[in-house]
Amino acid sequence: MFNDDLAHKAAINLTELRNKKPLIHNITNFVVMNFTANALLALGASPVMAHAPEEVEEMVSFAGALVLNIGTLTHPWVEAMLKAGKKANELGIPIVLDPVGAGATTFRTDTAMKLTDALSISVIRGNASEVLSLAGEDSQTKGVDAVHGVDEAEGSAIALSRKLNTTLAITGPVDLVTDGKSVLRVFNGHEQMGNVTGTGCVASALIGAFLTVDEDSLEATATSLAAYGLAGEEAAGKSKGPGSFHPALLDALFNLDTESLQKKAKIES
Amino acid sequence: MFNDDLAHKAAINLTELRNKKPLIHNITNFVVMNFTANALLALGASPVMAHAPEEVEEMVSFAGALVLNIGTLTHPWVEAMLKAGKKANELGIPIVLDPVGAGATTFRTDTAMKLTDALSISVIRGNASEVLSLAGEDSQTKGVDAVHGVDEAEGSAIALSRKLNTTLAITGPVDLVTDGKSVLRVFNGHEQMGNVTGTGCVASALIGAFLTVDEDSLEATATSLAAYGLAGEEAAGKSKGPGSFHPALLDALFNLDTESLQKKAKIES
Amino acid sequence: MFNDDLAHKAAINLTELRNKKPLIHNITNFVVMNFTANALLALGASPVMAHAPEEVEEMVSFAGALVLNIGTLTHPWVEAMLKAGKKANELGIPIVLDPVGAGATTFRTDTAMKLTDALSISVIRGNASEVLSLAGEDSQTKGVDAVHGVDEAEGSAIALSRKLNTTLAITGPVDLVTDGKSVLRVFNGHEQMGNVTGTGCVASALIGAFLTVDEDSLEATATSLAAYGLAGEEAAGKSKGPGSFHPALLDALFNLDTESLQKKAKIES
Repeated sequence: MFNDDLAHKAAINLTELRNKKPLIHNITNFVVMNFTANALLALGASPVMAHAPEEVEEMVSFAGALVLNIGTLTHPWVEAMLKAGKKANELGIPIVLDPVGAGATTFRTDTAMKLTDALSISVIRGNASEVLSLAGEDSQTKGVDAVHGVDEAEGSAIALSRKLNTTLAITGPVDLVTDGKSVLRVFNGHEQMGNVTGTGCVASALIGAFLTVDEDSLEATATSLAAYGLAGEEAAGKSKGPGSFHPALLDALFNLDTESLQKKAKIES
Repeated sequence: MFNDDLAHKAAINLTELRNKKPLIHNITNFVVMNFTANALLALGASPVMAHAPEEVEEMVSFAGALVLNIGTLTHPWVEAMLKAGKKANELGIPIVLDPVGAGATTFRTDTAMKLTDALSISVIRGNASEVLSLAGEDSQTKGVDAVHGVDEAEGSAIALSRKLNTTLAITGPVDLVTDGKSVLRVFNGHEQMGNVTGTGCVASALIGAFLTVDEDSLEATATSLAAYGLAGEEAAGKSKGPGSFHPALLDALFNLDTESLQKKAKIES
Repeated sequence: MFNDDLAHKAAINLTELRNKKPLIHNITNFVVMNFTANALLALGASPVMAHAPEEVEEMVSFAGALVLNIGTLTHPWVEAMLKAGKKANELGIPIVLDPVGAGATTFRTDTAMKLTDALSISVIRGNASEVLSLAGEDSQTKGVDAVHGVDEAEGSAIALSRKLNTTLAITGPVDLVTDGKSVLRVFNGHEQMGNVTGTGCVASALIGAFLTVDEDSLEATATSLAAYGLAGEEAAGKSKGPGSFHPALLDALFNLDTESLQKKAKIES
């Protein structure tokens, strides 16, 4: 059975978010910048992308959350992430980390670890292979796609969550969210999401948006993934392939009905 | 009452633009590059994006207009903008400046001012907060979104236009265009444009395209905003949210009928 | 008459590609990164974008093909391309080069030549003007658009193909593919492809995907262009302009039926 309280909380979070229209500062990869900005706008948040060392501290100080994403990474971007992240920590602004491709190359794995070492991060979201690589396990990532299942990574996720004192979300056909104590599973979503680039990155950005209205990062993460997954289900019914799924997903985020969300959120506690 | 001559001019400009297919050189931000290129193509122009110091002068020399946009800015891009801009000035190629996020961070405000100091710019387009910040007023920008209304900024816009000897366009629910002497208002557009990232940046690029066929920058700016706004109105009628609005807007730009434009352009002089 | 064996081969290549889901490493321009990734995913491949000098060698070593695209180029990207390319050559991983804008600026032409000098490249795909410029002819490119026809470039293409020991593809209303000995022409495609930015860049990426299942680069190139062109034809029938054509093209790539491909591929040998 799915948890009614969390379904109710999902609806409340979405309502508050739309009222608040929080600024979300993203330092993210080139492939998904446009999609991420549009998804945040469609959901009801206000996105900004900025990565210049001259401005990241000033920009993040206005933001409700900071989202760091290590796809298409180069060294200067890592410096910008550290600078923005330290300022966010100083000001108590929550950080989401998306370790895109960790485990695929040493540079990505090392960068993800450098960021988790230097910063206090509220939520890390990745696929199973990326999270396993952060746990120092002998993971294999095929480019930026997972080769491991979510359940396979549960034990490591709980241990890593405790070690880093971070909420961890592993997304896949079923999403797993843990703060090291509790484990939630989110059953919303649609396989078409796997055929569009950046749907994982967008999930991370939406988690950031939910963190601005829900201080409980376990709950914020699970409820945002339920809302996003439900939008994906609705978009799948209105599209004919990954191309038309993309705009349909943004439409669904924009039109997401809080009553439907309360009724259809599938969060297992 | 709306100005019939300007509506007629809008139709003429669009026709000439499609015949000429001018090359528009954009140095713009990562978030909107794809959307900008596609909008220029759909309108009938030929976009090129290039920012390497090695090639910007050569590239801009083939172009009908240069569009500078300071979103996702870093220092080397400012240098490229200055280099391209100086060459454009030398060759009499019109420049459009989009001061994305001016007022939000010191780096953006300073860069916008540095560009207006160093270059002779034909048109500056921004939201009210961005333009107020260029006028040195105590503006507040929330990330890249305006927190000020267009009418609030009219006086400052006229003064700034005179000071910089530039046409200024402040876009919003109603667009205001001034060359420091006359003020035009454009009533075309649709609120859905505010839910898609980069619609403002695209407006700046389309102004650049219209400048290649209309030397009167006040008129070129107002007529391009009317054409774009009308495309937005038509797209809104064919879409179900910001996701489907995006492709519908490009379709509408592509299919924009010059007779309809002459009939429906709402430019108040 | 069209070549039935090559139509059959197109269907076989697509089937194998979908079974294999090869990783394609792209070092490409900012404008088309999202479109390229989504097109590769829709076709059935697995895209990764990475350009950091720290990781390109490691990343390419997992890949089935490397795609180098010189749009929005800067110097550090050239270095990354050379590094990734040398590793690919060492490991026998095929490379596709897309010389976007060669002929338009000295920097682009020189870079394209530097890459062809330093690397063994399996396939070069460009428009007629870009390819003529590589042949050292007094070509003219208008920004990134061709001002020359495909047939005009045939002789130079054959000569250049022999000189560089590379398969050359010149795409346009009819695509020409040559390995310096044979010449194939592909008649699939739709004019709407010219109204969407990055359709040429995507063609180069899809050639990379087909090279992972077909060692004959002449055949791999022609069959991939036939598959892509057929998807374009199907998308055109389902769209109302370049905006809706874009998602329809991705849907068509995703839904492309191998039987239809065998029946409708129009490759002339």
